[in-house]
Amino acid sequence: MTTAAADEGMWLLNDPPHAKLQERYGFDLTDPFLQRAMHASVRFNNGGSGGFVSPDGLIVTNHHIGADSLQKLTRPGRDLIADGYLAKTRADELKCPDLELNVLQSIEDVTDRVKAAVKPGQSAAEAAAARRAVLSAIEKESLDSTGLRSDVVTLYQGGVYHLYRYQKYTDVRLVFAPESAAAAFGGDVDNFEYPRFGFDVCFFRAYQNDKPVNPSHYFPWSKTGVAEGDLVFVTGHPGTTNRLETVARLKYRRDFGHPYQLARLRAMESALIQFSETGPDARRVAATDLHRVANARKVISGQFQALLDPAVMARKEQEENALRSADPKPWEAIEKTQSLLRSRERQMALLERGEAFSSELFAAARHLVRLAAELPKPSGDRLREYRTSNLDSLKFQLFSPAPIDPTLEVAKLSASLTFLAEALGDRATIEIVLAGKTPRVRAAELVAGCKLFDVAERKRIFDAGPAAIDQSADTMIQLARTIDPAAREVRKFIEEQVDEPERQAYSRIAEIRFEKFGRTIAPDATFTLRLAFGRVSGYDEDGVARPYQTTVAGLFQRAGKMGGREPFVLADRWKAAQSKLDPTTPMNFVSTADTIGGNSGSPVVNRDGELVGINFDRNRPGLVRNFVYSDVQARHIAVHGGGVVAALKTVYGANDLARELVGQ
Amino acid sequence: MTTAAADEGMWLLNDPPHAKLQERYGFDLTDPFLQRAMHASVRFNNGGSGGFVSPDGLIVTNHHIGADSLQKLTRPGRDLIADGYLAKTRADELKCPDLELNVLQSIEDVTDRVKAAVKPGQSAAEAAAARRAVLSAIEKESLDSTGLRSDVVTLYQGGVYHLYRYQKYTDVRLVFAPESAAAAFGGDVDNFEYPRFGFDVCFFRAYQNDKPVNPSHYFPWSKTGVAEGDLVFVTGHPGTTNRLETVARLKYRRDFGHPYQLARLRAMESALIQFSETGPDARRVAATDLHRVANARKVISGQFQALLDPAVMARKEQEENALRSADPKPWEAIEKTQSLLRSRERQMALLERGEAFSSELFAAARHLVRLAAELPKPSGDRLREYRTSNLDSLKFQLFSPAPIDPTLEVAKLSASLTFLAEALGDRATIEIVLAGKTPRVRAAELVAGCKLFDVAERKRIFDAGPAAIDQSADTMIQLARTIDPAAREVRKFIEEQVDEPERQAYSRIAEIRFEKFGRTIAPDATFTLRLAFGRVSGYDEDGVARPYQTTVAGLFQRAGKMGGREPFVLADRWKAAQSKLDPTTPMNFVSTADTIGGNSGSPVVNRDGELVGINFDRNRPGLVRNFVYSDVQARHIAVHGGGVVAALKTVYGANDLARELVGQ
Repeated sequence: MTTAAADEGMWLLNDPPHAKLQERYGFDLTDPFLQRAMHASVRFNNGGSGGFVSPDGLIVTNHHIGADSLQKLTRPGRDLIADGYLAKTRADELKCPDLELNVLQSIEDVTDRVKAAVKPGQSAAEAAAARRAVLSAIEKESLDSTGLRSDVVTLYQGGVYHLYRYQKYTDVRLVFAPESAAAAFGGDVDNFEYPRFGFDVCFFRAYQNDKPVNPSHYFPWSKTGVAEGDLVFVTGHPGTTNRLETVARLKYRRDFGHPYQLARLRAMESALIQFSETGPDARRVAATDLHRVANARKVISGQFQALLDPAVMARKEQEENALRSADPKPWEAIEKTQSLLRSRERQMALLERGEAFSSELFAAARHLVRLAAELPKPSGDRLREYRTSNLDSLKFQLFSPAPIDPTLEVAKLSASLTFLAEALGDRATIEIVLAGKTPRVRAAELVAGCKLFDVAERKRIFDAGPAAIDQSADTMIQLARTIDPAAREVRKFIEEQVDEPERQAYSRIAEIRFEKFGRTIAPDATFTLRLAFGRVSGYDEDGVARPYQTTVAGLFQRAGKMGGREPFVLADRWKAAQSKLDPTTPMNFVSTADTIGGNSGSPVVNRDGELVGINFDRNRPGLVRNFVYSDVQARHIAVHGGGVVAALKTVYGANDLARELVGQ
Repeated sequence: MTTAAADEGMWLLNDPPHAKLQERYGFDLTDPFLQRAMHASVRFNNGGSGGFVSPDGLIVTNHHIGADSLQKLTRPGRDLIADGYLAKTRADELKCPDLELNVLQSIEDVTDRVKAAVKPGQSAAEAAAARRAVLSAIEKESLDSTGLRSDVVTLYQGGVYHLYRYQKYTDVRLVFAPESAAAAFGGDVDNFEYPRFGFDVCFFRAYQNDKPVNPSHYFPWSKTGVAEGDLVFVTGHPGTTNRLETVARLKYRRDFGHPYQLARLRAMESALIQFSETGPDARRVAATDLHRVANARKVISGQFQALLDPAVMARKEQEENALRSADPKPWEAIEKTQSLLRSRERQMALLERGEAFSSELFAAARHLVRLAAELPKPSGDRLREYRTSNLDSLKFQLFSPAPIDPTLEVAKLSASLTFLAEALGDRATIEIVLAGKTPRVRAAELVAGCKLFDVAERKRIFDAGPAAIDQSADTMIQLARTIDPAAREVRKFIEEQVDEPERQAYSRIAEIRFEKFGRTIAPDATFTLRLAFGRVSGYDEDGVARPYQTTVAGLFQRAGKMGGREPFVLADRWKAAQSKLDPTTPMNFVSTADTIGGNSGSPVVNRDGELVGINFDRNRPGLVRNFVYSDVQARHIAVHGGGVVAALKTVYGANDLARELVGQ
């Protein structure tokens, strides 16, 4: 971990690691390379990444990122998760009900304006209000002047503010998805493991005015693959890292935050597994929720192991001490906010973040209740998600025609209400929510008395405004209304007493860091576009060499060794194609580039900016990366681009699609 | 719930409900009936019940009670859980490595002596010591004079003390077990559901001096089955109920105890599922642990729903108020102990009950460490499980030759150490246990450095005494030694500050209850022999009639409807026998008799004392029975005795066994 750690970094596109790449790889990071990385990378707003791969708006991502749309397009008799999908012609491409894609157009530094809005001597409440107002104003001005989605991004936990402008695409159509048996081969068992054999890809196409988009840039599909030692780049949207957090916050996570999250995720996973096992329909409707929760449980488990590792905590203390001597006050301020956070975080999570109400219907009801209350206010005074510049995206989600399954709603709501009763520790609020019933009975009652399954009903209530909310007999709207004062109160407390003081403290910490080290450390991930780089390379674990890539032969071997049991059942199409597939066809490969959740679906590109793979996972040692970068064993894992083309042709007969990628 | 609730009660054999049975069913509960119930009922010390069913010592119980032994008798190439077993001759009956059975011989009321040992004015510590000493003395005197296992049982939470004497059997051999696909058809999905189609039976034979035992009593196998409305009895060993607990304790369970247990069980279940899925060997070795944990999770979930039901709590408050007016002090005392319990219960559970160290090796190490410290003391001063009268049973377990799987040990220990770090809230102790490693690394290290897999090593250390413990380099012994002071300290605190004051308070509550109502309410369950009675009867749920019994036809229908997916895969033998099986053959039936966990495997007998079924489960509405009895929907579920004989003959070709049961 000496020079090698120099592959660390999820770099800002407007502050890229020119010198580092020159020094380590003799690579000249040119403007055209960066322009392509910016304009060909695609953010999936449901939590992933992707990239344009043809001049006709074709986009590649992971199957597990597309799965949300596959689930929503699934109908009895058309199970896109289990069976996959291939559009034979463009007319067969299936429009996703609520998928929004964002493509970054420009970045502008607005730090000075944001910081100037908060005046010395303001109370935390005043400062929080001033900050919210200036962010909202900047975004609205940008939206009005450019027509582009405009988000101010908080970097370095409050040290720097950048305005990101995006082209939005809301007409996105499914082109190809494999069956989940191939995409998620190995399932939860192999998730975060390597060697790996996942065919975790999915293709969409962006449309505008009913015509395929012609993007300004796309990643040409490489025809040469990768070799050990190759320099590669990952260009995507890492979600969240915690590397610049103080030790006090990390200890808070270890002692309170992560144990709470683990308990919650296990409760939801247990409930979803039980629901899934009640029959094939239940299994189908719960598939993506179950995958999401199981994946999160594995991520948080891995992070928790890292937080319990004294070596990790010692390293963080060392890093902190190197800065803290300059001025200990900001660190002390963050120590103080942790005890405030501790006293309220469960309320915040359960009531305000809605973890007590795991339900699409509740989410819709809450938006309707809050929209009625917030829209009459000036944009800068609203709860942040209701600011003018965000309304179109919010309404696109709220009015999604995607079907909502009542049986799954009852199962999830019952589990999350039960978890509320376990975890909140405030009996009066629990009793208000449960209204004199058990969680199971209450969940069934809430779903049965809710009409928000119907988009028209959601629109009707939205259009009717506050009066319709006050008079509504809808059970879910009543619940959202009842709990709203408590939820707003805890949110206000956290925003004013925790978030705002922390932002000010981190702003000072960033100053100290920049003074001492310059901008040599990238900001923590914020689900915005970043560029990472690394070397394709295998590694040793438990004395066993793990190769830099895996092959089709390995897939069939693993299926055989695991006795064909779920989740190692080979997809029928792959079994049928076995004799025609070259066994040396590469499946997956690994590199040292710095990634995290949110990078799923990120294009992996070579020196020439050609796509060589699609990132889809990290290995288990990589789970520590929320807190520290390591490249001893930690790797991200990508689907091999060459393997994708081979499978499209040989396994799926998707020759048109393959031709669109590689021209033959 | 008016007169029908009169079927409530898990009655003491020496205080049986003569009048109630006479009044409700015109049934004369005779002495011979009671003698048979006592001497033919068998307690499985691993947590279940059973009964003698032939003059040659044949015993029936549930497959899920036998499963612990099946697992321990399983070897690579002989998977008794997956494949089942049928001994062709007596010579083929397989000796279980550590199964102890107890058959009750007599009950003696020792309340006066126990209560007299505790003097007015003694401190809680003095009272606890005096009570422990008198219990130990009574048991030792009884063992010395009769040679029988002698346990003083605390009834009415401290109101009454009875001495139970048992004949012990430690040479117990496996005669027959079905494959788990038939025994646990429907798995976790159908567990606690009805209609049900479980073939949850298992047969053992007790031996003494290498010859089958000829018990003084056994239950003749009925040839007539049951009809709706029939009076039946369940004679077995219900584990724990909480019906006579105060409202303060029930609220403690609702707000702290149950949430903690749910979090722990989900953590263990999640870890065991993940371990199981890593391959067929892992799946095999983890099978019984996973079943046990999943079952417990479902039980505690059901109880938690009941505790969250305001109607249940209101009923308990009403019951309590009816007594409390006589003298509120004991209830107030128990209110006080709850806050003490709250401050220490996680330490008690994790460190002393060992929930942080889910490992056979740790359990052995702790016994060795404690035996070395306790045996030099007088019996009455020892930790209760090391009293002289219990040593033989304890050593029988400790020196069990059952194999211990190291991979499963690491998985369980890793999960439970992780849970310790989540739940204990005492960073210093967590760090002592983890010794500077992550839970995963620490678990692997502990198992790798432990030699207690080997029975000879366990015996060697036991024989060598305290010096061997002090000098041991065995990792697990070192851990048990390191944590022992903290574990003993919290146990002492709970025994003296919670248990003893509660026992005194409950003693007073029992007096008040007996004064007001006489002994009309049976004591809470204590995993000792009880007699319950009820009526065979179906019920309505969600407007659907549930029949009093199910049939073989229903089994095949359900398998078909669930698409042959696990856990609804039909066993091959049953598929092969389908055409030969009479579709009207009964599989399972239900009655209103009052049961709880521990009653698994209990003989269900008719008015003539003949066995008509083997209890194996409750339905979901029955999960409320820890706290209140109901017979509106709550039922226990039994395997039908007639169905067992039919399957033995037609499905398994076990004609000798069938002949031993029904003589033809």
